Amino acid sequence: MDERFKKQVDFALEIDKEKNIFRQTHLSGHGRNENDAEHAWHMAIMAYLLKEYANEPVDISRVMIMCLIHDIVEIDAGDTYAYDPAAKETQKAREEAAKERIFSLLPDDQKADLTALFEEFEAGETPEARFAKAMDNFQPLILNNSNGGSDWKEHGVSASQVYGRQSTTKPGSAILYDVTDKIIKDNVTKGSLKNDL
Amino acid sequence: MDERFKKQVDFALEIDKEKNIFRQTHLSGHGRNENDAEHAWHMAIMAYLLKEYANEPVDISRVMIMCLIHDIVEIDAGDTYAYDPAAKETQKAREEAAKERIFSLLPDDQKADLTALFEEFEAGETPEARFAKAMDNFQPLILNNSNGGSDWKEHGVSASQVYGRQSTTKPGSAILYDVTDKIIKDNVTKGSLKNDL
Repeated sequence: MDERFKKQVDFALEIDKEKNIFRQTHLSGHGRNENDAEHAWHMAIMAYLLKEYANEPVDISRVMIMCLIHDIVEIDAGDTYAYDPAAKETQKAREEAAKERIFSLLPDDQKADLTALFEEFEAGETPEARFAKAMDNFQPLILNNSNGGSDWKEHGVSASQVYGRQSTTKPGSAILYDVTDKIIKDNVTKGSLKNDL
Repeated sequence: MDERFKKQVDFALEIDKEKNIFRQTHLSGHGRNENDAEHAWHMAIMAYLLKEYANEPVDISRVMIMCLIHDIVEIDAGDTYAYDPAAKETQKAREEAAKERIFSLLPDDQKADLTALFEEFEAGETPEARFAKAMDNFQPLILNNSNGGSDWKEHGVSASQVYGRQSTTKPGSAILYDVTDKIIKDNVTKGSLKNDL
């Protein structure tokens, strides 16, 4: 094995750990908590299937790879629950350090490529990043909705909190945001979300 | 929700079940068994990172989506262990029925698209399918090797069996096949694989 290949395999083995980072979302059918690798897989397929709803034309290859890698930093930084303000405050610093450590396992050109894709996703300023962010919102939304909104209920989440998080869906897909809006209202009616509107 | 969108969401929720299909491969660090969704996620990222080793130029977007969907049929058909000849015999029929049921949840055009991608992967006759198949072999190989070949040891697998399965790596990537060959020989030396050569 030459040095370049060894680095690529080391990285591939390192990211295996993402399968052990569990999220607050539960699998459909009131299953166990979902992990980051499963979430990323699901998002990437949904991006491929739902690309017709993107506000702007997207290079689906770039959307998919962004979906696949966007949570790699959580191997070190852990999952930050969308509705945990204290954890949100330290999230940026934790994820910056993780990004540097983990992507540095790769050869320099691939470190630069994956870091750029990760940062593009985070910034959300390209059509691809905006649509990938819509998937990052929409995938757990439909899982949670299929479970009657039990993830929200468990954490006492309110409608305005969900609107806050889901606001990043609209720049990626106005159509998916309309569906999101209906789902939120439905869950308020059912009592799964606190009504603070 | 219109009919088309409803079908797409139904499919997205159906494939969530792939996260409950467990494989014989264990996560690195002697972890738990890996599931199909995690395996597909890992394969797709590895395809992106290792594409320079493909024998022929590949459209990486098509390789990635093939990797992501290639095991969806196992939701109905279950995982067939590569070294279980009895299960291998009925695998084709089980997977055909699953393919029809699951992809039929989608709108017709997307059913046709995903079915074609799935069949292209299975046939292994395009550069993209050949490289995706190399990933399907190489991903569990490096996980298992990182665990000292314990998956092979547990099932009493022999070197010729592994060569049989891994033979589909060479048409996708001669370079990855060379690495595979070294890993197999190493594991024979260590006693993790039976030496029947």
